[in-house]
Amino acid sequence: MYLHAVSPQPILYSYFRSSCSWRVRIALALKSIDYETIPINLIKDGGQQLAIIEYLEETRPTPRLLPQDPKKRAHVRMISDLIAGGIQPLQNLSVLKQVGQENQLTWAQKAITSGFNALEQILQSTAGRYCVGDEVSMADLCLVPQVANAERFKVDLTPYPTISRINKTLLALEAFQVSHPCRQPDTPPELRA
Amino acid sequence: MYLHAVSPQPILYSYFRSSCSWRVRIALALKSIDYETIPINLIKDGGQQLAIIEYLEETRPTPRLLPQDPKKRAHVRMISDLIAGGIQPLQNLSVLKQVGQENQLTWAQKAITSGFNALEQILQSTAGRYCVGDEVSMADLCLVPQVANAERFKVDLTPYPTISRINKTLLALEAFQVSHPCRQPDTPPELRA
Repeated sequence: MYLHAVSPQPILYSYFRSSCSWRVRIALALKSIDYETIPINLIKDGGQQLAIIEYLEETRPTPRLLPQDPKKRAHVRMISDLIAGGIQPLQNLSVLKQVGQENQLTWAQKAITSGFNALEQILQSTAGRYCVGDEVSMADLCLVPQVANAERFKVDLTPYPTISRINKTLLALEAFQVSHPCRQPDTPPELRA
Repeated sequence: MYLHAVSPQPILYSYFRSSCSWRVRIALALKSIDYETIPINLIKDGGQQLAIIEYLEETRPTPRLLPQDPKKRAHVRMISDLIAGGIQPLQNLSVLKQVGQENQLTWAQKAITSGFNALEQILQSTAGRYCVGDEVSMADLCLVPQVANAERFKVDLTPYPTISRINKTLLALEAFQVSHPCRQPDTPPELRA
């Protein structure tokens, strides 16, 4: 996934299912930035989406995706890093291929539950309506795609009431809906909603 | 790894060998921040070190670890994310344990070479003396510990002349030396240098 920030309209090279692409799509939607999507069937992508989001935040600061207070910003980045650097890389497609068909589900579930155990605990002290307080932040952009992955890998979410509650609240927002994998130009018909 | 930013002296809960801890130690050294180290034998740590570094940057801006120009900042964060989110999580101790003794070396080498192939290419367009231009940045804090990991896993660095050259230049700087795993309070005697 790659954002080409040309004027007048940025181009997002995106893969409908990629949680990394989804995070950036949410940011673009929240900031009301019009963009063109060029679908690429990308099996592997790195963590560069956070660099894109920080870039968008610096060049298009409204609405803000990072709180003004440095401690709260650190909380947002800590949660984002935990998801985008601690959970997602372990269950992305290229790693699962290497793990082998028969071990994929167990491997992914272990990566996600181990990360969610830490995340649920952190959120209990940082969350308001959303991951950090009552404003949508970069942490929320990371949360929703990761919960969707958890559901795809049939992770039991009962032990994570805070994660589940915030996810549900966020999915009701338009920016999270228009950016959803089931509504992208490259979404196959059978996965559309 | 965890930084408790109390006054007058922050406390770093650190593990000598962890590349995540090492990154933060470099940042603290560059910014001349005195801190107390409390060693913890941490087998698993997430990507939260980037949140700590961004927090340090915002609260102790001199010397800066992020360039002023938004595009250059994006380059720094892209390189940092590639290393801290795309390479390191795949070869950390908890993942290697899961992969199993006999597959560890191949697994780690594959993760590192695949990441370094992308990184070498990126650096060829962003690097000056260091990863992005001629100023030490957060990207450099990520590079050096990752090259040390590559050496530990016996990765052939010949195909990566830019990575190798920048790494060598950085290792000559004092901040990278005092923060080195071989010089920490919890470094075992046989690994000291």
